[in-house]
Amino acid sequence: MDLASATWTDVRDLESELAVVPVGSTEQHGPHAPLGTDVLTAEAVADAGLERVDRTVIRTPAIPVGIAEEHRQFPGTMWVSPDTFRSYVRESVQSLAHHGIERVVLVNGHGGNVDALREVGARLTRDGDAYAVPFTWFEAVGGHSADMGHGGPLETALLRRVAPELVREGRIETARDGAADGWGDWTSHANLAYDSAEFSENGVVGDPAEGEKERGEELLELAADSLARLLDAVAEREVSRPDGR
Amino acid sequence: MDLASATWTDVRDLESELAVVPVGSTEQHGPHAPLGTDVLTAEAVADAGLERVDRTVIRTPAIPVGIAEEHRQFPGTMWVSPDTFRSYVRESVQSLAHHGIERVVLVNGHGGNVDALREVGARLTRDGDAYAVPFTWFEAVGGHSADMGHGGPLETALLRRVAPELVREGRIETARDGAADGWGDWTSHANLAYDSAEFSENGVVGDPAEGEKERGEELLELAADSLARLLDAVAEREVSRPDGR
Amino acid sequence: MDLASATWTDVRDLESELAVVPVGSTEQHGPHAPLGTDVLTAEAVADAGLERVDRTVIRTPAIPVGIAEEHRQFPGTMWVSPDTFRSYVRESVQSLAHHGIERVVLVNGHGGNVDALREVGARLTRDGDAYAVPFTWFEAVGGHSADMGHGGPLETALLRRVAPELVREGRIETARDGAADGWGDWTSHANLAYDSAEFSENGVVGDPAEGEKERGEELLELAADSLARLLDAVAEREVSRPDGR
Amino acid sequence: MDLASATWTDVRDLESELAVVPVGSTEQHGPHAPLGTDVLTAEAVADAGLERVDRTVIRTPAIPVGIAEEHRQFPGTMWVSPDTFRSYVRESVQSLAHHGIERVVLVNGHGGNVDALREVGARLTRDGDAYAVPFTWFEAVGGHSADMGHGGPLETALLRRVAPELVREGRIETARDGAADGWGDWTSHANLAYDSAEFSENGVVGDPAEGEKERGEELLELAADSLARLLDAVAEREVSRPDGR
Amino acid sequence: MDLASATWTDVRDLESELAVVPVGSTEQHGPHAPLGTDVLTAEAVADAGLERVDRTVIRTPAIPVGIAEEHRQFPGTMWVSPDTFRSYVRESVQSLAHHGIERVVLVNGHGGNVDALREVGARLTRDGDAYAVPFTWFEAVGGHSADMGHGGPLETALLRRVAPELVREGRIETARDGAADGWGDWTSHANLAYDSAEFSENGVVGDPAEGEKERGEELLELAADSLARLLDAVAEREVSRPDGR
Amino acid sequence: MDLASATWTDVRDLESELAVVPVGSTEQHGPHAPLGTDVLTAEAVADAGLERVDRTVIRTPAIPVGIAEEHRQFPGTMWVSPDTFRSYVRESVQSLAHHGIERVVLVNGHGGNVDALREVGARLTRDGDAYAVPFTWFEAVGGHSADMGHGGPLETALLRRVAPELVREGRIETARDGAADGWGDWTSHANLAYDSAEFSENGVVGDPAEGEKERGEELLELAADSLARLLDAVAEREVSRPDGR
Repeated sequence: MDLASATWTDVRDLESELAVVPVGSTEQHGPHAPLGTDVLTAEAVADAGLERVDRTVIRTPAIPVGIAEEHRQFPGTMWVSPDTFRSYVRESVQSLAHHGIERVVLVNGHGGNVDALREVGARLTRDGDAYAVPFTWFEAVGGHSADMGHGGPLETALLRRVAPELVREGRIETARDGAADGWGDWTSHANLAYDSAEFSENGVVGDPAEGEKERGEELLELAADSLARLLDAVAEREVSRPDGR
Repeated sequence: MDLASATWTDVRDLESELAVVPVGSTEQHGPHAPLGTDVLTAEAVADAGLERVDRTVIRTPAIPVGIAEEHRQFPGTMWVSPDTFRSYVRESVQSLAHHGIERVVLVNGHGGNVDALREVGARLTRDGDAYAVPFTWFEAVGGHSADMGHGGPLETALLRRVAPELVREGRIETARDGAADGWGDWTSHANLAYDSAEFSENGVVGDPAEGEKERGEELLELAADSLARLLDAVAEREVSRPDGR
Repeated sequence: MDLASATWTDVRDLESELAVVPVGSTEQHGPHAPLGTDVLTAEAVADAGLERVDRTVIRTPAIPVGIAEEHRQFPGTMWVSPDTFRSYVRESVQSLAHHGIERVVLVNGHGGNVDALREVGARLTRDGDAYAVPFTWFEAVGGHSADMGHGGPLETALLRRVAPELVREGRIETARDGAADGWGDWTSHANLAYDSAEFSENGVVGDPAEGEKERGEELLELAADSLARLLDAVAEREVSRPDGR
Repeated sequence: MDLASATWTDVRDLESELAVVPVGSTEQHGPHAPLGTDVLTAEAVADAGLERVDRTVIRTPAIPVGIAEEHRQFPGTMWVSPDTFRSYVRESVQSLAHHGIERVVLVNGHGGNVDALREVGARLTRDGDAYAVPFTWFEAVGGHSADMGHGGPLETALLRRVAPELVREGRIETARDGAADGWGDWTSHANLAYDSAEFSENGVVGDPAEGEKERGEELLELAADSLARLLDAVAEREVSRPDGR
Repeated sequence: MDLASATWTDVRDLESELAVVPVGSTEQHGPHAPLGTDVLTAEAVADAGLERVDRTVIRTPAIPVGIAEEHRQFPGTMWVSPDTFRSYVRESVQSLAHHGIERVVLVNGHGGNVDALREVGARLTRDGDAYAVPFTWFEAVGGHSADMGHGGPLETALLRRVAPELVREGRIETARDGAADGWGDWTSHANLAYDSAEFSENGVVGDPAEGEKERGEELLELAADSLARLLDAVAEREVSRPDGR
Repeated sequence: MDLASATWTDVRDLESELAVVPVGSTEQHGPHAPLGTDVLTAEAVADAGLERVDRTVIRTPAIPVGIAEEHRQFPGTMWVSPDTFRSYVRESVQSLAHHGIERVVLVNGHGGNVDALREVGARLTRDGDAYAVPFTWFEAVGGHSADMGHGGPLETALLRRVAPELVREGRIETARDGAADGWGDWTSHANLAYDSAEFSENGVVGDPAEGEKERGEELLELAADSLARLLDAVAEREVSRPDGR
């Protein structure tokens, strides 16, 4: 159920304790893909996942601004500090838990949010506020995951499936030409770079030309299936904390 | 320009220093109106206002969760603390200012956000980060403003104009029957109540039946005109701080 | 009972659960009125209100520095940040509540404190720490309230009643000449100004010449009566939070 | 000059860069002495000190609530957390410094504030905001200092000098009978107690009977002289920070 | 140079701008390995790495308590919150940078610290305080990295090399019997567990019997070589932030 | 028992509720003594004290970086803010208390930590988290305490006893020549200085030549005996908070 469209009486009558919170970012995705990519993809995966479960799940509005200072050299990128992001997500989930919606999957579309969401999930769970687990769609698409870049094959493919009108097809070549091969600048397994502008000319990582719509279809299927499995697992997990040894 | 749909190169080429940030809340609006009312109305007013100005203005995604603990007795209501909300808005605006988008109107749809947005605007402006001014649409619709309640005539009317499919017409009577006449419980100009459930049975204040679609049309016109005037004023204002006396 | 003059054994023997905390500000009030105006008036109203109730009420020392950065262009103005002010008030009230003094009226003399005190009262009340309600005297003086400015008719009148030696009568004309007509600089119901120096030459708003001593007498009567009614209401209100719907 | 009584134009014309901020506490002082003792004594010493210097010094309102949780078992005691107290003092001083009042002596009447004031003074000074030095009167009264207790000889004596009507003479014997000999409960130079109720029956430490008015007169002289010397030193000190070695 | 053993005059004469800060954790490592494992291994790798570079590098004391609440069910485990840990590391590095030691490698021995160190490094670097890069030794030991568990083959091997007296050889079998095969409890690439006690009986992950001393010798070589390469890269990297695009 | 060397099963079997946490600082101690002096001495005293009690006491790793910004003009000095230090110590102790180790002596080697440790101990104790008491060794060595400086007779003596190889004997004369006689720069019992470089040329206070090894031996004996007495007192103290009066 889409929370924003529902009334409070609808929520009351639903008596569901399971929700998904899409979490995105408004940040550069190259010259060909929109700043809203991570919100769009998180929402699309969340919605597709919900269709695949045989449970009543509440779907909240997406959180639109995340941890994206690494892209600050690219105009239009928005961000908040990790502290503020963590508080915003944690308190949003706590407000759901106040109504008994105590199991939450944070459906994430942005790599920069991953660490913070795990920290928030741990805090909520250990404090007994809610059982919250982050799910980042591009980590859960089988072999495709290895191709994840930024505005690269995976995101471009998924956009072509869920919001094709927002992909600037005429700039794909430009996007590819200014792209980096991989994320970061590594020595001894340490990333020496903190800003994407240190290693990518136009903010892209990976080749967006390898992101056909058919691949996007497959990605959506895979991600939605993964999310559905996770929702079942989260709904059924025993979440009481272990005793001290 | 819709920021989420734009690419970073679009924003770069735009060279605008003016933006609107819709700010809403996901909270109960009675049995007849959706939890997303304050987001929907803030977005609708922002978009309508932008159409009326002869300037390039960036329109960011809406901030979906605000200060709404006062509605926590009603299922589905989401909220964050005032501290977190202030940080989330302030830092989002700072990220825009980083790119030279240094004049921002915060187009607000929720009464509970008003004080916090003013505080944020003052902080940003005094620190020289950005010139940010909040605009709450229902305060700027002429004589109608006096009728503002909660899920009452104004919001119901505007919803019927911008998202009629989300108004549960069959529950309008129920909504009116459980509504309060006014907001709060007052003695000596002090509001003794902190939660809306202290004075409203179903979360509604005011009579939603008085919110016809035509009124919504008029509200949108008035609010959009007000916003357009404000955008011009914000764009042209001398914002350097006065000297000490 | 004046808390500062009492001993702890006096407080113990009193067994009162009701207190007033005067809250002021040390800030410019024009060339004719003292920086301590908001403390003096808050204290005067608090004391006059207490005389009118048939209850034992504790009167704490006044909080002397508030949220007044808006007057920072005028020498001698002191202020703290909203965060610090909120913490200082909240924790002061919590310390009273620790002794069972769990119902508190925050008698306020400064407009800049209003929003913060409401936020603090909500937090204390929802957390079950204390039931705290702010009361701003110039909002509760009937038709006079419409004349409130800054160092204008109302404050000058009340000062002439409670601290006439501190009103520089010889500067009233100067004060009026450099005064603004109204508070702020408005477009579309949004205040474009954040600092009082943006719209007032000498920090005054309104005409202090319209603040005769007799008016001050009347203001004190009205404010004290309002406060007395509020104290009764606060003492008797059912403060348990409503159940979820 | 008393800041609260002055107008902003008076402060402007004064062009002083030196101020004293009295800092007190509202806390138990036994059955015989008022909860406001630490405010009264800090103010009295500040005022007496100012009379002895040949400089223009601004005297702000006293900060009335300090770090006094150690007395929380005694009704009427108010306190804030150390964090909040430090912020309140620091920001108050920063607001003075904003107007060029950049040298400040914090005239303190309460032992529990000592550490925090030193921390605040260091922060302000190192950050270049202001040069602020705390002065605790009972540490600067020569041989008398050794007799400092709590509501004991020194405070009772000074109260008899500056506010004799607030000393309950009829309870002096009770006060002495329930008093502790010394502050704390010590083993190996570590104080095992955190609350004064752990070692004092009625909150008193030391014998108030040894606090005659004449002694109070002498204490006031000594403290005022000490403060005057300190004001001169603070006014003249080179406060630029040393270079790195 | 070992900072703790040096005098300030030694540091002054050194004129080095490069440092390593070992970062560990005091937490359970199974029945056979000491709670100090992560400190010991971080220090050993740091020291071995320093020997391999042809530069003057300062080696600070190790930070002993990290982010380890995930092991709280196992007695003796110490931890601080992520916020406190980040502040402690960030400010420690800032103090080094104050003296011109502006390039820092955080040599880390604990998986739970990884995300936080990356966040700290980004903050320091973007703010221009210092260029700080985390290095987690077990991520940089070639093919061995895949065997990392907890108290498993890699840590046991390295301990046998650097602190053999602390490995309880008689409990290796017990350790193996109660160990988990892998870290966490996964569904759809999301870890459903937040505490190690949810998936490991005795806190061990992986088989410590596969951690012979020879392997430890090799691990130390590999890690030290990796660190040495990283130190060169950090020393020579251009760290000015890229311009906006 | 040394916590870092123990396994979690050892701690579990121990069932001790008493711990010591050495707390130091990495900061200048003149040209002759190492930056690690305060850690070394805190550890030495902690270890010696533990040998003298007939109880099982856990000894945690030392906290290496403390409140030492006052020495920032001297290269190599590390520090964190008082807020961060307090959090780091408080949360470390809370983690011990989580396992039932609820009585803790904070064995401190640095004057700059004293106030903060007292504040932390109070917070932990009043919140019922743990009973924690700070012990600063040089305050508990009888008549010697009066000679405490900085890198002066006491610390030099104790170093000669516990880490003689780290005392630069050839620089003792230099150390003495650049030393201050006393700590600070005092007027009216207020310290006008905030940085040690304001009153000491080389960071030393007192004459290190008066710190022979024999004196160090005696200091260690005295401090260890004091600590042992304190441990017994802390172990046996009734720590429930007193009732309200």
